[in-house]
Amino acid sequence: MDISAIIANIVEEMRAAPDRGTVARYIPSLAEIDPAQFGIAIVTADGETFTGGDAETGFSIQSISKVFSLTLALGKIGDRLWSRVGREPSGNAFNSIVQLEAEKGIPRNPFINAGAIVLADVNLAGYRPREAIGELVQFVRYLASDDGIAIDETVARSEEETGERNRALAHFMKSYGTLHHAPEMVLGTYFHACSIEMSCRQLAQAGRFLMLGGRHPEGGRVVPDRRARRILSLMLTCGHYDASGDFAFRVGMPGKSGVGGGILAVVPGKASIAVWSPGLNASGNSQLGGLALERLAEATGWSVFSA
Amino acid sequence: MDISAIIANIVEEMRAAPDRGTVARYIPSLAEIDPAQFGIAIVTADGETFTGGDAETGFSIQSISKVFSLTLALGKIGDRLWSRVGREPSGNAFNSIVQLEAEKGIPRNPFINAGAIVLADVNLAGYRPREAIGELVQFVRYLASDDGIAIDETVARSEEETGERNRALAHFMKSYGTLHHAPEMVLGTYFHACSIEMSCRQLAQAGRFLMLGGRHPEGGRVVPDRRARRILSLMLTCGHYDASGDFAFRVGMPGKSGVGGGILAVVPGKASIAVWSPGLNASGNSQLGGLALERLAEATGWSVFSA
Amino acid sequence: MDISAIIANIVEEMRAAPDRGTVARYIPSLAEIDPAQFGIAIVTADGETFTGGDAETGFSIQSISKVFSLTLALGKIGDRLWSRVGREPSGNAFNSIVQLEAEKGIPRNPFINAGAIVLADVNLAGYRPREAIGELVQFVRYLASDDGIAIDETVARSEEETGERNRALAHFMKSYGTLHHAPEMVLGTYFHACSIEMSCRQLAQAGRFLMLGGRHPEGGRVVPDRRARRILSLMLTCGHYDASGDFAFRVGMPGKSGVGGGILAVVPGKASIAVWSPGLNASGNSQLGGLALERLAEATGWSVFSA
Amino acid sequence: MDISAIIANIVEEMRAAPDRGTVARYIPSLAEIDPAQFGIAIVTADGETFTGGDAETGFSIQSISKVFSLTLALGKIGDRLWSRVGREPSGNAFNSIVQLEAEKGIPRNPFINAGAIVLADVNLAGYRPREAIGELVQFVRYLASDDGIAIDETVARSEEETGERNRALAHFMKSYGTLHHAPEMVLGTYFHACSIEMSCRQLAQAGRFLMLGGRHPEGGRVVPDRRARRILSLMLTCGHYDASGDFAFRVGMPGKSGVGGGILAVVPGKASIAVWSPGLNASGNSQLGGLALERLAEATGWSVFSA
Repeated sequence: MDISAIIANIVEEMRAAPDRGTVARYIPSLAEIDPAQFGIAIVTADGETFTGGDAETGFSIQSISKVFSLTLALGKIGDRLWSRVGREPSGNAFNSIVQLEAEKGIPRNPFINAGAIVLADVNLAGYRPREAIGELVQFVRYLASDDGIAIDETVARSEEETGERNRALAHFMKSYGTLHHAPEMVLGTYFHACSIEMSCRQLAQAGRFLMLGGRHPEGGRVVPDRRARRILSLMLTCGHYDASGDFAFRVGMPGKSGVGGGILAVVPGKASIAVWSPGLNASGNSQLGGLALERLAEATGWSVFSA
Repeated sequence: MDISAIIANIVEEMRAAPDRGTVARYIPSLAEIDPAQFGIAIVTADGETFTGGDAETGFSIQSISKVFSLTLALGKIGDRLWSRVGREPSGNAFNSIVQLEAEKGIPRNPFINAGAIVLADVNLAGYRPREAIGELVQFVRYLASDDGIAIDETVARSEEETGERNRALAHFMKSYGTLHHAPEMVLGTYFHACSIEMSCRQLAQAGRFLMLGGRHPEGGRVVPDRRARRILSLMLTCGHYDASGDFAFRVGMPGKSGVGGGILAVVPGKASIAVWSPGLNASGNSQLGGLALERLAEATGWSVFSA
Repeated sequence: MDISAIIANIVEEMRAAPDRGTVARYIPSLAEIDPAQFGIAIVTADGETFTGGDAETGFSIQSISKVFSLTLALGKIGDRLWSRVGREPSGNAFNSIVQLEAEKGIPRNPFINAGAIVLADVNLAGYRPREAIGELVQFVRYLASDDGIAIDETVARSEEETGERNRALAHFMKSYGTLHHAPEMVLGTYFHACSIEMSCRQLAQAGRFLMLGGRHPEGGRVVPDRRARRILSLMLTCGHYDASGDFAFRVGMPGKSGVGGGILAVVPGKASIAVWSPGLNASGNSQLGGLALERLAEATGWSVFSA
Repeated sequence: MDISAIIANIVEEMRAAPDRGTVARYIPSLAEIDPAQFGIAIVTADGETFTGGDAETGFSIQSISKVFSLTLALGKIGDRLWSRVGREPSGNAFNSIVQLEAEKGIPRNPFINAGAIVLADVNLAGYRPREAIGELVQFVRYLASDDGIAIDETVARSEEETGERNRALAHFMKSYGTLHHAPEMVLGTYFHACSIEMSCRQLAQAGRFLMLGGRHPEGGRVVPDRRARRILSLMLTCGHYDASGDFAFRVGMPGKSGVGGGILAVVPGKASIAVWSPGLNASGNSQLGGLALERLAEATGWSVFSA
C-alpha cells in the first residue's frame, strides 16, 4: 500500500474542495484562521510517519484534549470515574444542558463539554490549577515524544472570556455534587486543556498508544490493553458529538474531533492519524477532516468494521 | 484458541448466575419463558460452528430482525433510505416518541422501533403485507441456510394486540409523511418481522454475511463490502438502544439485541455469534447475553478495538 | 356604556387591519375561508345581545368545542376526570406528544388535543359514537337556546382524513391506559365535536351559563357555581394553547380559541363574547379575534383583573 | 360578611391540620423553622385589616419578592422587559434549565428563578448591587407603609452559599446575552431580594396597590391601572410554578408563593391577603397556605371567576 500516494491524492482533493465549512467564530484566535489550510499525518504501527499538506502547522486541539484528559483521569481513579460520568452517546449538541437536568447532573459521556469538565475536576484532585494543567501538558508531550507542545495562552484567555455556557454547565453539575472543586478552578484547567496547540504530526504521534493496545512505542505501557480498547470504543460512539453515528458509518474509525478543526483517528494495530482543516460542518466537526478520513478509509480499507 | 472450552466455561458461569434479569412481560408468549435458559452459538470465518447450552431452542428474535429488515431495505432503495431515517444513537428509550417530535418525524436510526417501522414501510413497496413478510422470512432463511425458520403466529397476534405505542409511532410518522403506506398495513409487517423465531445456531448462521464482508459463505454476495461495514457500524453505535455505548465499551463487538433475550454479535473476519437468555436488564437487553459476550471478548480478544 | 358604539369601532378597525394572520390550511374546508371576515357578538348579563360584522356567519368552532365537552364530561364523572387529565398549562404546542411521554400518558389539561380526546373517551361511555356526538350537539343547542346548530360533515370527514397526529396521540394514551375505548371510536366523536358549526351569535349564547355562575338564562342550572368558576379558570390558564399567558396578560378574560378562527371569552357576571376571524397568528389563535378582545377590554374595562 | 369569624375558623382548621407539608431544607435558616406555625392577614379595599394566627411573625418571603422586583423593573424599562423574559406558564419546575435552552436563553416568565434573575439584572442598571437591593427594600417599605421591613442577612449568605443552580441559570442566560451585567453581581441582588423578611401583616399591606388598580392606599399611584391588571394576570397564570393552573382552579385568585411558605393573594377591588405556613407540598408551594386560601375563597366567594 502506497500511503504517500494516497496522502498526495487526498491533499490534492482537499486543496480544491469547494465546500470547506465554516471556521468557528466564538473567539478571535479561531475566527482569524485561514480556512484554506489542510494537513494530515499518519503514523503506522511499524513506526513510519507520513504527512501531507499543512501537517506541521500548529492548531488548537480543543476537544481532542478530552482523549488525553480521559486517559489521565482513568489512571487516577479508574472505574470510579463512571459514577460521575456516563458512557452513552448524547443525542444532543456538545454543550447541551438539557440532558444534564434529565440525568441529575451526570454527563452522558466524557467527550461532551460537561463530561470533560468532570475530567478536569478529577485531574485537579490534590493539585493547584496551574499544576494540574502542567501535568496534562507533560502527559501529552510524553505521549507524542515531543517537548515542544504547549498551551496557546491567548486562546486560553479567550476561552475564559467567552466561557459562560461552560460556566453554566459547571455550576449546574456543582449543584448536583458531580464536581468536587470550585467551578472556577475546574474551568480554569478545562479552558487551558482546550487551548493546547499541536500540529497534525504531533497529534498523530500522541495517538500512537491507542493504536498499539496501550503500549508506548518507545517502550513501556501507557494504559492496559483493555483500557485502550475502551477509550477507542468511547471515541467511536461519542467522539463526534451528535454526528458520531454518521462518522462511524462513513469512516469506521474511532475518532475525536475538536472545534479547532482537528480530528484524531485511530485504527487499532494499524495507524494513528491526525487531520486538520479549520472549517466546520453543521455538527461542529471539521468538514474536510471528515471527508479526508472517509477517502483514506476507502483507499486503505482501514476500518474497525473490515472483515 | 479452544473455543469449545471457552464456551463451556461461559455456559457454566451463566447457568449459575444469580442475577438473570427480568423476562419481558408485555405479551404472554414472552412472559411465560423459563428464565433459566441460556444458549450460545459461534460460527467462525472458516465455517466451523460451536454451540453451548440451549443453542437449539427457538426464541423470538424481536428487534434483531431489524438487522435483516435493514439489509433488505438498503437492497431496495440504497442510500435513499437515509432521507427517511437517521444514523445516530438515540439517547432515548427504544420506543420514545419525544425524539420524533423534535426531529420532525424522522427516526434517529433504523434500530429503534420508529426506525424499523420505516424499514417495514420501505419493504412493503409493491407488495401486499403478506408478501412482504414472506419475502423477509425467505431472506432470513437464505442468510441462515435454513428453511426451518418461521414466524411464531401466536407472538405476532399478541404484538398486534398490545402494539398501541407502536401504532402511535406509526401514525405520528404518517402525519409527517415519513411513511408512504397506511400505518395499519406497515405495522402488520412490522409485528410479524418481530415474531420470527430462531435458535442461536440459526441466528449465528444468519449473521455470517456480516462477518464475511458481505459475502454469503455458500457463494455469492449478499451485500457489497462497504454496506456490510456500514450495517456493522450501525449495530455498534445503535444496536443496544440507549445502552449501545456501554455495550461497545464492555464487549467491543457490533451487536443487536432483542427483547426476547437474544443478541447477534459479529466480529468482522472472525466470528458470527448468537447468545440468548430471556432475562433483560434495565436497558431492555439480555442480562446474561451481554455478560456472556463480555466474557467471550475477554477470553478470545475478539473486539473491533483490539490492536 | 355604549356597547353598540364600541362594537362599531372595533368592527371598523378590524375591517381595515393590515395583518390578518394566516388561515389554517390542513383541511380544504378551512383553507378556502375568506380571511377578510370578522364577526363579534356580545350577550350581557341582563340578556341583551349586541353584534357586529359577520356575526351571523357560521364557522367551524374546532377547539372551542372542548369547553362544552369538558362541561359534559364533568357532569358525567365529576372530579374523577382529574385522574385522567391534568389542570396545568402545557408549555407546549396544542398537539405536542412530548409532554404525554414525560407524564405517562396523562395530558396536561383538557384543552390541548390529547386532553380533549380523553374528554371524548369519557363522553363515549355507554354510548355508540353516533349517540355520543348527538348528545354533545343537543347539549350545545340547549346552552345556546338554538336548535339550528349542527355538525359540518364535510369538515368532519376532512378531520378524519388528516388526523394522523391525533391518532398518534390517541394510540399513545391507549398504550398507557388513559383511554378506555378503542382509539378509532374515540377519535370519531372527537373529530365530529371539532366540526360543530356555529355563528358568533350562537357561540356567545352558548357561553351564557359561564357568565352567570352556571345558571341557564332561561331557568335552571347547567352546572354548580363552583364548577362554572373552575371551567373559567381552565379557560384562563389553558385556553389559548401556549399563548394562554399572553392572552391573559393582554385581554384578561377567560377564553377558548379554535383553529377555525373563533374565540369564546367570558367576563363573569358581565358578558359572554364570541369573536371570529379566520386568520391565525403564530400560536394558532385568531389574530384579529385576540386584537378585538384586547380593544374590547380596554374600552369596557371588562377584565377579571379589574379592581 | 364576618371576616374575623372566617379567619378564626381557618386558623382553627389549620392549627389541627394533620398534613402540613415539608419545610424547605436547602438552607439551615429555613430548615429550622417550626412547621406548626400558620398566619393570615387580610387588608380589604376599605382599608380594614384582619389577622389570625402567627400574622406578626416574620418569614423569608423568597419568591414573593419577584412581584415587587417585577413592578420595579416595569417602572424602569416598561414593555421593553418583554424582549428579555416571556409571559407564559413554564410547564416545568421553578429552577428548570431545559426551557432556557429550548427558548434561547429567554425565561418563560418573570416568576421562575431565571426570569427573576433577569429582573435583578434590569434593576441593577446604573446601580451598584448594594444600591439596587437598597432601592428594592425601600420600595417594599413604601408599598407596605412599614419602615421595619429588612433583609435577613443570614438567609442571604446561605442563599449565596447554596446557589449553584441559580449561578448555572445566570451564566447560561449570560451566554445568550439575556443578562447585561456580570452574573455574580446580578445574583448578589437576586439572593438578597429573596431574603427579605416580612410578616403576613406587612405582606398583605404591600399587596394593597394590586388590589386597588395600582393606587397607593395612602395616596398617589404606584403603577397605572393596566399594569396592575397585567401583574395580576401573571400572578394567576405563573405565580405557583408548575402548579399555577391548580391554584387558579382551586382558589381562583392571582397569587404568588415563596419557598419560605408564604403566599400573597389579591382579589381585585376586594382584598389583599397574605398567608404563611412553612411546610411545602410537592410543587414547592405552602401546603396549608394554599388550603387556607381555598377555604377563604369558599367562605367569601372571593374569586376572579365569580359571577
